[in-house]
Amino acid sequence: MQEPFAPTDHTRVVRESHRGVYDRAEIYLILDEGFVCHLGFVAEQQPFVIPTLYARVGDDIYFHGSAASRMLRNVSAGVPVCLTVTLVDGMVLARSVFNHSMNYRSVVALGTATLVSDPAEKMEALHAFTEKIIAGRWADARRPTEKEMKATSVLKLPLQEVSAKVRKGPVEDDAEDYALPVWAGVIPMRLVADAPVRDSRCDPALPEPAYASRYERAGLPDIKI
Amino acid sequence: MQEPFAPTDHTRVVRESHRGVYDRAEIYLILDEGFVCHLGFVAEQQPFVIPTLYARVGDDIYFHGSAASRMLRNVSAGVPVCLTVTLVDGMVLARSVFNHSMNYRSVVALGTATLVSDPAEKMEALHAFTEKIIAGRWADARRPTEKEMKATSVLKLPLQEVSAKVRKGPVEDDAEDYALPVWAGVIPMRLVADAPVRDSRCDPALPEPAYASRYERAGLPDIKI
Repeated sequence: MQEPFAPTDHTRVVRESHRGVYDRAEIYLILDEGFVCHLGFVAEQQPFVIPTLYARVGDDIYFHGSAASRMLRNVSAGVPVCLTVTLVDGMVLARSVFNHSMNYRSVVALGTATLVSDPAEKMEALHAFTEKIIAGRWADARRPTEKEMKATSVLKLPLQEVSAKVRKGPVEDDAEDYALPVWAGVIPMRLVADAPVRDSRCDPALPEPAYASRYERAGLPDIKI
Repeated sequence: MQEPFAPTDHTRVVRESHRGVYDRAEIYLILDEGFVCHLGFVAEQQPFVIPTLYARVGDDIYFHGSAASRMLRNVSAGVPVCLTVTLVDGMVLARSVFNHSMNYRSVVALGTATLVSDPAEKMEALHAFTEKIIAGRWADARRPTEKEMKATSVLKLPLQEVSAKVRKGPVEDDAEDYALPVWAGVIPMRLVADAPVRDSRCDPALPEPAYASRYERAGLPDIKI
């Protein structure tokens, strides 16, 4: 059993506190199902929120990008960041407009990211990152060259100040509204992967890999580096 | 024809500038397909990124929440915000690890949100907001009471400093990599709505509304208030 995250003034879920989640295993499942985070940082008093791919590896979040990008330049300078992951699970249609809601699972992680500079650790991090996004792909694709590694920044955010907020389940209406003749229910939503589209320049004799044919996010195996 | 957004130092897409989009109609289509944004703001030097429902109405973005929430309290104080919307369209599996990518459409809007305080405008805004999330629902559901209106804050962010970044289309590999015996292609992804789940306390005689049975985001009609 791993320790839950300790809520801080910044991560304690205050509104609808019953939806706050601090359990590490539950938070890691959300982080592993997601693969796009929204990374917030401040530059010249202006907050920026940029979407980027990420992967959880152990107790860290890894993300990467061009060494030349504004986001990476800012974030690798050691400024405080907020990394948020949101999974949309459905629309909740209550009898009253007021009680309409969304089913979702979101994780907020606060901290400071550091640049992974050691070449061996950087290669290991990219390996783990790639495997968390598409398990099996690292073995098939051409590995990064030294030049490509130099053009890529890899950042690591330790999971320390973290909480999740989860809304699930049915409609919650006010007691007196249940008698109203208004249809109520939940529209489940999910992100799906469709059949892969082979590149027009890809040799038709090359078999479509199973990880592409059946791309799924939930239930990923754990990876450690 | 509406004027495109003028890129600023903060919104000009610098990295992969060919993916930058400033066309208003194209940006509005992205904003209308999405319904969850990630809202960034700064409190005590710490950036926060919070997911929330939003709707574009004309040249404004509306979002709402409990008047008691930390996010609403902070954002309604008139601090600079960054509102980001991201639609995930697919995984791009290149022959090289380095050229792997994601197909996506994202919009970044910077500015200052203001509280909608006039009661009539607030009700109109909630109406438009509800209709943009689920067209047809306002007519069916119980309208907000005065007490509920007081408990709800509605905020408006004018669309002024805005840009989008879009990656679409096939794999882009380095010329010399096309000969490699590596399967390459795109895995399309999309958010889908499944069949609605009727609330257990909903009278079975009430017909399931069409907007719930066939919930779709793309191709929404425009709404003005």
